[in-house]
Amino acid sequence: MSELSSTLEPPYYTVIFTSRLAAAHEGYEQMADRMDELAREQPGYLGMDSVREGAIGITVSYWESLEAIRSWGRHTEHREAQRLGRESWYEKYSIRIALVEEVR
Amino acid sequence: MSELSSTLEPPYYTVIFTSRLAAAHEGYEQMADRMDELAREQPGYLGMDSVREGAIGITVSYWESLEAIRSWGRHTEHREAQRLGRESWYEKYSIRIALVEEVR
Repeated sequence: MSELSSTLEPPYYTVIFTSRLAAAHEGYEQMADRMDELAREQPGYLGMDSVREGAIGITVSYWESLEAIRSWGRHTEHREAQRLGRESWYEKYSIRIALVEEVR
Repeated sequence: MSELSSTLEPPYYTVIFTSRLAAAHEGYEQMADRMDELAREQPGYLGMDSVREGAIGITVSYWESLEAIRSWGRHTEHREAQRLGRESWYEKYSIRIALVEEVR
């Protein structure tokens, strides 16, 4: 990641995605790039920060509303990526959806 | 980071700290380790995930309440770390305080 997202005036929503990649994760990088590109085109998308250190990754994305998050969650290509993530790429992952109340 | 924090039953609070280190950041690593250790001892601390990729870092910490976050923010050693971060270690940083409403 080259640039940090700037903070926006709250309230807005964030999705915190933490993951540990499995040793074998063929096709992951390409799909991650595609999801990154696709997320940016979604209605209500506000920005994203993403860092990976070895197997551990944290991606924080910012959204106008819960509806925007749910709509992106249902996107056909994204659902396929989620399935592959669950079934083969990730050894473990967590998703936290949170309302940003304060920024500094 | 070796282990991902497990998700807890919401609601609880999270602090999303994104940063870009300055080229010169002497003393940073040692202080970061100390803050990590100290945060874990604070009342209301629930967990932390932290990843750094080159200059860019994301640390997400989890807390029982806003009061717990504010109290940690006022801790004497933490205030000194914040000052050094602002004045010399970080080229840019953002802090977002958010209420976790949903986990998956």
